[in-house]
Amino acid sequence: MSKKVAILMGSDSDLPVVKGAINMLKSLSIAFEVHVFSAHRTPKQACDFAANAKDNNFGVIICAAGKAAHLAGVIAAHTTLPVIGIPIKSSTLDGLDALLSTVQMPKGIPVATVAIDGADNAAILAAQILAIADEKISEKLAAMKEKMTEEVLEKDRKIQAEI
Amino acid sequence: MSKKVAILMGSDSDLPVVKGAINMLKSLSIAFEVHVFSAHRTPKQACDFAANAKDNNFGVIICAAGKAAHLAGVIAAHTTLPVIGIPIKSSTLDGLDALLSTVQMPKGIPVATVAIDGADNAAILAAQILAIADEKISEKLAAMKEKMTEEVLEKDRKIQAEI
Amino acid sequence: MSKKVAILMGSDSDLPVVKGAINMLKSLSIAFEVHVFSAHRTPKQACDFAANAKDNNFGVIICAAGKAAHLAGVIAAHTTLPVIGIPIKSSTLDGLDALLSTVQMPKGIPVATVAIDGADNAAILAAQILAIADEKISEKLAAMKEKMTEEVLEKDRKIQAEI
Amino acid sequence: MSKKVAILMGSDSDLPVVKGAINMLKSLSIAFEVHVFSAHRTPKQACDFAANAKDNNFGVIICAAGKAAHLAGVIAAHTTLPVIGIPIKSSTLDGLDALLSTVQMPKGIPVATVAIDGADNAAILAAQILAIADEKISEKLAAMKEKMTEEVLEKDRKIQAEI
Amino acid sequence: MSKKVAILMGSDSDLPVVKGAINMLKSLSIAFEVHVFSAHRTPKQACDFAANAKDNNFGVIICAAGKAAHLAGVIAAHTTLPVIGIPIKSSTLDGLDALLSTVQMPKGIPVATVAIDGADNAAILAAQILAIADEKISEKLAAMKEKMTEEVLEKDRKIQAEI
Amino acid sequence: MSKKVAILMGSDSDLPVVKGAINMLKSLSIAFEVHVFSAHRTPKQACDFAANAKDNNFGVIICAAGKAAHLAGVIAAHTTLPVIGIPIKSSTLDGLDALLSTVQMPKGIPVATVAIDGADNAAILAAQILAIADEKISEKLAAMKEKMTEEVLEKDRKIQAEI
Amino acid sequence: MSKKVAILMGSDSDLPVVKGAINMLKSLSIAFEVHVFSAHRTPKQACDFAANAKDNNFGVIICAAGKAAHLAGVIAAHTTLPVIGIPIKSSTLDGLDALLSTVQMPKGIPVATVAIDGADNAAILAAQILAIADEKISEKLAAMKEKMTEEVLEKDRKIQAEI
Amino acid sequence: MSKKVAILMGSDSDLPVVKGAINMLKSLSIAFEVHVFSAHRTPKQACDFAANAKDNNFGVIICAAGKAAHLAGVIAAHTTLPVIGIPIKSSTLDGLDALLSTVQMPKGIPVATVAIDGADNAAILAAQILAIADEKISEKLAAMKEKMTEEVLEKDRKIQAEI
Repeated sequence: MSKKVAILMGSDSDLPVVKGAINMLKSLSIAFEVHVFSAHRTPKQACDFAANAKDNNFGVIICAAGKAAHLAGVIAAHTTLPVIGIPIKSSTLDGLDALLSTVQMPKGIPVATVAIDGADNAAILAAQILAIADEKISEKLAAMKEKMTEEVLEKDRKIQAEI
Repeated sequence: MSKKVAILMGSDSDLPVVKGAINMLKSLSIAFEVHVFSAHRTPKQACDFAANAKDNNFGVIICAAGKAAHLAGVIAAHTTLPVIGIPIKSSTLDGLDALLSTVQMPKGIPVATVAIDGADNAAILAAQILAIADEKISEKLAAMKEKMTEEVLEKDRKIQAEI
Repeated sequence: MSKKVAILMGSDSDLPVVKGAINMLKSLSIAFEVHVFSAHRTPKQACDFAANAKDNNFGVIICAAGKAAHLAGVIAAHTTLPVIGIPIKSSTLDGLDALLSTVQMPKGIPVATVAIDGADNAAILAAQILAIADEKISEKLAAMKEKMTEEVLEKDRKIQAEI
Repeated sequence: MSKKVAILMGSDSDLPVVKGAINMLKSLSIAFEVHVFSAHRTPKQACDFAANAKDNNFGVIICAAGKAAHLAGVIAAHTTLPVIGIPIKSSTLDGLDALLSTVQMPKGIPVATVAIDGADNAAILAAQILAIADEKISEKLAAMKEKMTEEVLEKDRKIQAEI
Repeated sequence: MSKKVAILMGSDSDLPVVKGAINMLKSLSIAFEVHVFSAHRTPKQACDFAANAKDNNFGVIICAAGKAAHLAGVIAAHTTLPVIGIPIKSSTLDGLDALLSTVQMPKGIPVATVAIDGADNAAILAAQILAIADEKISEKLAAMKEKMTEEVLEKDRKIQAEI
Repeated sequence: MSKKVAILMGSDSDLPVVKGAINMLKSLSIAFEVHVFSAHRTPKQACDFAANAKDNNFGVIICAAGKAAHLAGVIAAHTTLPVIGIPIKSSTLDGLDALLSTVQMPKGIPVATVAIDGADNAAILAAQILAIADEKISEKLAAMKEKMTEEVLEKDRKIQAEI
Repeated sequence: MSKKVAILMGSDSDLPVVKGAINMLKSLSIAFEVHVFSAHRTPKQACDFAANAKDNNFGVIICAAGKAAHLAGVIAAHTTLPVIGIPIKSSTLDGLDALLSTVQMPKGIPVATVAIDGADNAAILAAQILAIADEKISEKLAAMKEKMTEEVLEKDRKIQAEI
Repeated sequence: MSKKVAILMGSDSDLPVVKGAINMLKSLSIAFEVHVFSAHRTPKQACDFAANAKDNNFGVIICAAGKAAHLAGVIAAHTTLPVIGIPIKSSTLDGLDALLSTVQMPKGIPVATVAIDGADNAAILAAQILAIADEKISEKLAAMKEKMTEEVLEKDRKIQAEI
């Protein structure tokens, strides 16, 4: 049975950014679950989810959080599944706080961090991880990569027509 | 019975800095316990300690951690006691990562953050908090404040003799 | 008699942020006073307030200021009460100036710093401090913590219905 | 046949840091190859390696680079395998340049970024990724996690004996 | 035959900024070509363009890119022509990520970096470079410089009339 | 009678940097006084000094402080004399904290800030200020400026002999 | 005859900020001149102005500039009058570039830097400098200081009525 | 006759870094001159040099300076030759001040900025610029590029023998 991806966000206010990951997983036909779990307000639920994620057939966990973004690190503490962190930009410091809080993990507990607000890439990374053992996803990723190339080349042709 | 202070550090490599807090509490005759608890490597022990801290007669919890310093936030998630965070400078980014990871807590779960490597001040702040209901500590703090003033004035006299 | 909380702000332009602290203290039924005191424009009033705060039955002083935010430090210089600093984001540097000016206090004079614009958390921290010797506040904080958990769980349920 | 891990570094001066990843993979008995490939000085070799990595039985590619660290991004452009980036601290800017150059990837081409100089974690993350389809690695990671917990608890006991 | 300038941008969303370079080159009557080439989505096209640019009579290549801006570096890896980098400000970090990713190039592969969003200056710099062997462009630059001086002096006169 | 310059430092550990100002004032034969006054540990002495500085024949006050450097701001709050701030680099954040705490003063209370650790320039600036009404200092500054020019030109000649 | 203040700005787009200095000098009845002089586009005019400023009865020169703000430094190179720098926030980097370019002057050539966009304070600082030898300005500054205090106290009274 | 390269440095303390440019130009057999010219201490000499550089057969001017690095900008103000800026790291702020002061030039006056302390690359960029009209330099650069590739490949072979 194919592994699922979990998408956890620290607050429902992160949803507009997280949508990017949701849509990407849908377009790659990868099964996923979405949860609002706060490292600080629902720590028990977050930790329990992480501790049981492997047994519940999850392969990768994506965590989105802003400010002192601890969610990805807390989840990573309770699982050996790969954890992907999306630092969310909030109203101060332009996302730098969330980036450093997510990426600068101590030895032993990595978080695979993507760009600030980089939800699409978090989903693609999750797909790349699952694709190692799932040739179908691998093919979809290859096709998407080709399509991206085509789109850029199309834009290149268009810009030259315009200028 | 007087409340105790807990000093938690994310790694025993933080001890040289944390010593400043230990010595300060000793000099103020405030009872304390020291633990090495990692938010990521011993999350269960850290959370259990926090959850039981109030019943175990702790009044304040000091947490020291470097890099993506999640310890103070994780502890604060499991208690309503005031939690003081000491961001520890590590080998990159000059302590900025630990500062932002400690201070930029989301709404609902504050961490009382002191300066990077500011262990002495963490202990003084803990003492100030306990002093609200403990006149003896309050007097000691007032005396220490006076002594600090005296020391600066003494340095002022000395520097003028020298120059 | 219960201790009061003082909320000082460096400028009345800080009020929209500071409102978060005012409302939080009201919802916790903690007595408080609000003042506009500038470390630079009304230093005498600020220092006098701090020097007399303990005798006037204050237990904690919250200080909000932007830019080179000196208010919390100046207040802390004149009292042994715990002082909480809220760095206020202003029109340049995204709050980093206020954060560093508030948190990087020298040895001897701590300021318990919360997140940039983190007024709610300043009030909660003040409540946590008073709660050490006031079981009623402690119970209210525990109830609020539970309610926050419930709200996140409710949002979790809602988001799954939507997606 | 088990997938291999590739470790690429932009310069042989990165080796002291990269050693952490090499040793970690050895201790987890994961097969790997190490290369010095520069995104700028040997772009052809780097791109060819990436383009053929999947066919050559690699499952994950780790890239270490400093300054304007383009290696991970360039490799990621030529493969659908997950690419892990280690930003290396160099003589200026304390690693911030390498961190931002590695993590802030545009939509479509993620790099799973770990902490500055976080080579150990890069290897652990690679192992976590391979472990999804390899129960043996999964067990080793679980054992390592347990051992880390034990080590911290041992340090906790030791520190209490000392203080 | 006069050398041409190539203007490459990593995404067509960079066009509003890049327009500044296009208009400047037009006003200096310097021949140019514009392309949308992504270092990550169309690496082959980008590298091929760079490798053949000298033979195709280009003298300078201008590259505009945001976030982890690798385009200029990747192009520079494949040519000995001077490469000018324009860091583009995107939605987070105020352009600092693009600046560091463009300017902090390793030894051997320089990128001539201009200000964040500094497209006009990129074009002027390209013109200055071509002007070394093209007296006509040199004269146009001298005239433009004089005109700029005149414009500032005119503004000076105007402001004094107003105040 | 000529105005004096006051040099205040927040801690005697700032003396090695502050020496630069002392020596510069000596070399310009400008009368000065040096004090160790802490904005936080001896606020009363600092404020009293500032309040009386004009009557005590001071013309300019130089303040050196590190970390959350409040000294210059606190002094400026109590005088209408020009106050010069020297941000001192301490063990974390490379002086950025002291710079922002000194320079980002709110409307109404300026601090004339010089470079981090820029004690020489603080003294020269003080001399330039006094020189407006003191032609002798003005002549000394002009002579020093000429000498600086000579020294650079001499170095220029030397470097060309060497290379 | 009273000394005048010169206000130079690098671009007429700085005028909205610089207005703060103009209005402040008017309210203090200090004579002034305003010029648009660019360090880079009208260097000759800028340098000539600086070189002759003392003879033209100027006492202080205020310079406002954004981005790589060289104007204050270039002016300071050509005069021994005190030069005040106002770093102007532009469209990227939130003013940090202008602040560092203005304040981090090398030994020998100080620039008295005020806060980013701190035009009011630049004018007050200029007045404080002139006030050393001009008791009338000194009295106006003292009166303004008192008025500022009154305004804050009035705001304090008002806020308490409201809350 | 071949164009020369000018290397200007703001202080002779920059020589250890600037040596990298000197040696690179020597190895490429490009004629050059070295000068110590300060934008602030010898502005006249610096400006005169720039104004006459084209007539004196210079093709490119390299400027190295630290802190508020104005040298490149000041030189660029007085010539239409391409000016390359090397930001020099000094004792505070890790080179960020020099980088921003060099690269963030206003519209009209570009400075081609290389990495902090990137003297080698400044020389290579100068050579690339001269190579547009000088096939001999072009060939040398191509040979150097090939040699760099060979060196990396050699290091790659060596590292695999070792590990």
